[in-house]
Amino acid sequence: MGMVGAGQLARMTCQAAIGLGVRVRVLASAVTDSAAQVCVDTRVGDHRSIEDLLALASGCDAVTFDHEHVPGPQLDALEKAAVPIHPSGSALRYAQDKLAMRRRLGELDVPCPRFAPVTRLADVTNFAERCGWPVVLKAARGGYDGKGVWVCESAEQAARVLAHGVSLLAEEYVAFDAELAALVARSPFGQGAAYPVVQTVQRDGICREVLAPAPGLPLRLARAAQSLALRIAAELDVTGLLAVELFQIDGRLLVNELAMRPHNCGHWTIEGARTSQFEQHLRAVLDLPLGAPELVAPQVVMANVLGGDDGDMLARLHHVMAADPALKVHLYGKRATPGRKIGHVTALGSDLAELRDRAASAAGYLRWGNPKEAATPSPAAAAAPDPAAARSLPDSASAPSARDAT
Amino acid sequence: MGMVGAGQLARMTCQAAIGLGVRVRVLASAVTDSAAQVCVDTRVGDHRSIEDLLALASGCDAVTFDHEHVPGPQLDALEKAAVPIHPSGSALRYAQDKLAMRRRLGELDVPCPRFAPVTRLADVTNFAERCGWPVVLKAARGGYDGKGVWVCESAEQAARVLAHGVSLLAEEYVAFDAELAALVARSPFGQGAAYPVVQTVQRDGICREVLAPAPGLPLRLARAAQSLALRIAAELDVTGLLAVELFQIDGRLLVNELAMRPHNCGHWTIEGARTSQFEQHLRAVLDLPLGAPELVAPQVVMANVLGGDDGDMLARLHHVMAADPALKVHLYGKRATPGRKIGHVTALGSDLAELRDRAASAAGYLRWGNPKEAATPSPAAAAAPDPAAARSLPDSASAPSARDAT
Repeated sequence: MGMVGAGQLARMTCQAAIGLGVRVRVLASAVTDSAAQVCVDTRVGDHRSIEDLLALASGCDAVTFDHEHVPGPQLDALEKAAVPIHPSGSALRYAQDKLAMRRRLGELDVPCPRFAPVTRLADVTNFAERCGWPVVLKAARGGYDGKGVWVCESAEQAARVLAHGVSLLAEEYVAFDAELAALVARSPFGQGAAYPVVQTVQRDGICREVLAPAPGLPLRLARAAQSLALRIAAELDVTGLLAVELFQIDGRLLVNELAMRPHNCGHWTIEGARTSQFEQHLRAVLDLPLGAPELVAPQVVMANVLGGDDGDMLARLHHVMAADPALKVHLYGKRATPGRKIGHVTALGSDLAELRDRAASAAGYLRWGNPKEAATPSPAAAAAPDPAAARSLPDSASAPSARDAT
Repeated sequence: MGMVGAGQLARMTCQAAIGLGVRVRVLASAVTDSAAQVCVDTRVGDHRSIEDLLALASGCDAVTFDHEHVPGPQLDALEKAAVPIHPSGSALRYAQDKLAMRRRLGELDVPCPRFAPVTRLADVTNFAERCGWPVVLKAARGGYDGKGVWVCESAEQAARVLAHGVSLLAEEYVAFDAELAALVARSPFGQGAAYPVVQTVQRDGICREVLAPAPGLPLRLARAAQSLALRIAAELDVTGLLAVELFQIDGRLLVNELAMRPHNCGHWTIEGARTSQFEQHLRAVLDLPLGAPELVAPQVVMANVLGGDDGDMLARLHHVMAADPALKVHLYGKRATPGRKIGHVTALGSDLAELRDRAASAAGYLRWGNPKEAATPSPAAAAAPDPAAARSLPDSASAPSARDAT
């Protein structure tokens, strides 16, 4: 199987492929990429180069993606080369272009925040008159890993975003009760499988925790979220994984984002579900029957490990392993630049508060070399996240924001 | 970390290393070896070549082993090169030389079958006068994967084995109630961790099933087996994993074999224990704190997948995945020659009979393309194995026997 991109999602896919006896070839941007470090068949190239994509696909039974950045014409060329690509270019378009996604979901009567394409400041202020401030501005294309989302409290802030010159859409700000994610798989044959719905917790604009299953979520809403995700996967003809990020507000669900690949919201499945999302993606892309998605413990908590100030990871790993022998640590082989996702930890058990404390302590220690984050959690880390605290107001296109796409 | 050998044990160690961010280099005999297919840093060479071993060790923090076949002088040379090797040559000697192992365990008052070195037929018949027929003859060195063990009913059969000209010891035949295995880890720091004791079930001379925890094993014996394994690990200064194969007979335990590496009896730990044996071996060899060894389900059953007559594994995999979406399948990338271990399956739950049926059905289907093995289990596959049925009487050194070392 060929995989375009060699980040940690490809790395963990390669790990799952070893168990299934599946050979994976990745297209990396450099030999130091996270997956390139562990994939025997790494090709270094450019995901925008048709030649590099065709070389990747040659001899593969199927091609899939670690990210959504392959442009449409290149996807067309890949599909014409008669190697199945999953998801197809026509499905992937809705994960690449937020305006196309919003319009298509609207046609399908899928509940979403109100939105409008905006090109001038007047478009934004008109939208704000209808939906109120703050207004969320999103880059229609190319946003990822929290980049390309701005929460604007005023026309002045919106004007600064418009000055970036990227294609934008405006969305109403949703004062959500919780952020949820529904992860499903769908095979070319049409089989679907839905993981338990999770809650994602953001802090300082970055996904920090995933709680599986989402604590306190009424069964009705959990079922509705799974059904919605399976329906979107079928309607858009998604093959492989589909992660649907949702806002829960006043007993309703609104779709925030779509991703058509393994996703940060599913890292807990490596130990926490009978079938990991990475194995499931392989099974779906290769049109094998899907695996059982059920939880294997009453409660699972995943915490992302962010890069700290320096990198003596071995000493920190030693301490974390000594302090919590039952914690599962995953490191991605990435350089620990501050704030970058360099790994994750997973705790499994039955007491949610205890699991969150264990996961946050370990993630904090791996980042800072001391447990200060766990000792003084910010308000946004509490069980009911404060949406205002969870969203930063960066004024640069490269600053992290509340929406984290990986 | 360097690993000598590139079989499935190295392959699964490489898989575990991806999660920990540990880089593994393997010394393979060919690029088609099971681990060479998935290890980015594969060196092809000979495990008996000092040059190849030193090249493997160069730049590694530690070196460990996929098998026990590196000769003593080469181990000495490796140790002199100032790269820590785990286990050390002085420990590994007891996994390489059965006579040295029996003598050392005798000094430690560890209960073992009675034994004697034999060079002539008179040595065997004298031993049989003392302990009775059948007599088990074992090659003192080089036996592995069931090779090098002969159960002799008569002097005539013993004479045929002696004619092979290999160094032998005789052991009393133990009419065991069950075969057990106690798997422990020990780090250079001296930390120990013991997995739950398992029962292994052999059929036609090959390990077919591992039942974790060993069903019906009295707590007293389970604790005794764990303590014994931890004591042997400490006394022999084993670093890394130690698998102690045991006979259970009349409420007593006798040590059958030792292996100082990940072992077939621990494959169930990949999904069935909080820390897999492969992660545990890495942690031990790198002197990291050991992981929690506890079960994550009430009962786990592992069944080996043996090669059948042909190799349309994809179609068979498709059927097995469709029939049992919760089963975990592991394939080693090995050519499916008849009777060769090419993978394993693991089922987790609470009903032992159901789990054994699911695992045996899948392993049989992957081997034969139909579930005939599951439909008509041989008597030896029953819960209380018949030791006579479980041991074949091969008359060739290459035929499989009841003792399977991987």
